Amino acid sequence: MKDNLYNYILGIADNSLILGQRLGELCGHGPTLETDIACTNISLDLFGQVRSYFQYAAKIAGDNRSEDDIAMLRKEREYKNVLLVEQPNTNFAYTIGRQFLFDVYHLAFLAELQKSTDLTLSAIANKCIKEVSYHERFSSDWVKRLGDGTEESNQKMQKAINDLWTYTDELFHQTEADKVIVAEGAGVDVTKLKVNYYKRVNEILQLANLEIPESKYFQKGGKEGIHTEHLGYLLSELQYMQRAYPNMEW
Amino acid sequence: MKDNLYNYILGIADNSLILGQRLGELCGHGPTLETDIACTNISLDLFGQVRSYFQYAAKIAGDNRSEDDIAMLRKEREYKNVLLVEQPNTNFAYTIGRQFLFDVYHLAFLAELQKSTDLTLSAIANKCIKEVSYHERFSSDWVKRLGDGTEESNQKMQKAINDLWTYTDELFHQTEADKVIVAEGAGVDVTKLKVNYYKRVNEILQLANLEIPESKYFQKGGKEGIHTEHLGYLLSELQYMQRAYPNMEW
Repeated sequence: MKDNLYNYILGIADNSLILGQRLGELCGHGPTLETDIACTNISLDLFGQVRSYFQYAAKIAGDNRSEDDIAMLRKEREYKNVLLVEQPNTNFAYTIGRQFLFDVYHLAFLAELQKSTDLTLSAIANKCIKEVSYHERFSSDWVKRLGDGTEESNQKMQKAINDLWTYTDELFHQTEADKVIVAEGAGVDVTKLKVNYYKRVNEILQLANLEIPESKYFQKGGKEGIHTEHLGYLLSELQYMQRAYPNMEW
Repeated sequence: MKDNLYNYILGIADNSLILGQRLGELCGHGPTLETDIACTNISLDLFGQVRSYFQYAAKIAGDNRSEDDIAMLRKEREYKNVLLVEQPNTNFAYTIGRQFLFDVYHLAFLAELQKSTDLTLSAIANKCIKEVSYHERFSSDWVKRLGDGTEESNQKMQKAINDLWTYTDELFHQTEADKVIVAEGAGVDVTKLKVNYYKRVNEILQLANLEIPESKYFQKGGKEGIHTEHLGYLLSELQYMQRAYPNMEW
């Protein structure tokens, strides 16, 4: 039971951790000052959420692991984030597309997690959902602005959505740990979020003058620790300080 | 004396280490199969040279430091490579431009190092110079091919040379350690290589139908450990395995 809950929490937290790190890469490199600050703020929101989850995970682990150890010192195969969030900031359309495709899921997920029988998870969800509803508004607004913008912005947004589409289905997969925690009433049955997710996503894509990708070929593996080539590079950067200066604290 | 020689060796080795790592990033990503293999081979040559230098440095240090420790476990400020070699693979023209601007120096440097009164350094130089003379032929051939190619390749090559030019002057700076080792007859007085370097470089640029940059503004600092922003990211990748799996051996 303890192991399953620990792994379940990591599954949630790693999505925010890795997406937060990706967005953090843009700090000082955003296309405009306003979007730079917005992406950095979303990154900080996500890192804040991550701390709550990892503090809870450290408590459950009950050994000497700190939240920093859990965040920073695992090997690549031990990260449980979905493949979607580790995809690179290829250009602003990809950054926004990735954010949008994750935010719609994230918002629906947290709405359910609020009902968790685990009061800590429920409280964290309750705190996070306010931030994430803003994220979703920000990213879906930008999908519409770029999709329904110039010919070039439409093409770039379309390409990003097409490429990232393959990573959406994994959001609704359940691991063994998930199933146990869902059965206990503490977890969210993500399979039930799928229909509404695509409904909401497709609605925004249509408003954005974008085509809904037809591909039915989907990638998965992240939740089981099998990642795309991008994660290793991200982790090298993420973990550098912690590994170069072991046991450092801020 | 021991410290000076140790630092002197690191100053030489770090150039090859960092340039080798940069070239290694292209493995599997070169513009054509032939250039991909060539860049990877040059990278392997440089890593081979690095091992000879670091093995010697470890012997001089005389404590428990291994060649791997010296190569992988220093902090950014302790790397003594010139800024030129840490510049990124922006595009193939930058990769070639960086290689060319370094190779011309490297070849002249090794020709002098062969005369070192330090027999180990002289022997290493003697071994390395055969490889480096090939590197210099490869990179100067490509400068000519791209500079004297299409309008686009000419412009790209010119831009790369213009941008990298600012890092060439540092090659001929002497650190305090350098001066001591030169005075002892074991080191190369790089200030004496400068005139012939620019003569040779300019000759190739002219053959390549490229303009010799007029800028007289030069960057320096790498030899004293003050690096451009690019080195930190490179080191995160370079050191990842060694730091994630402490004391690992191949």
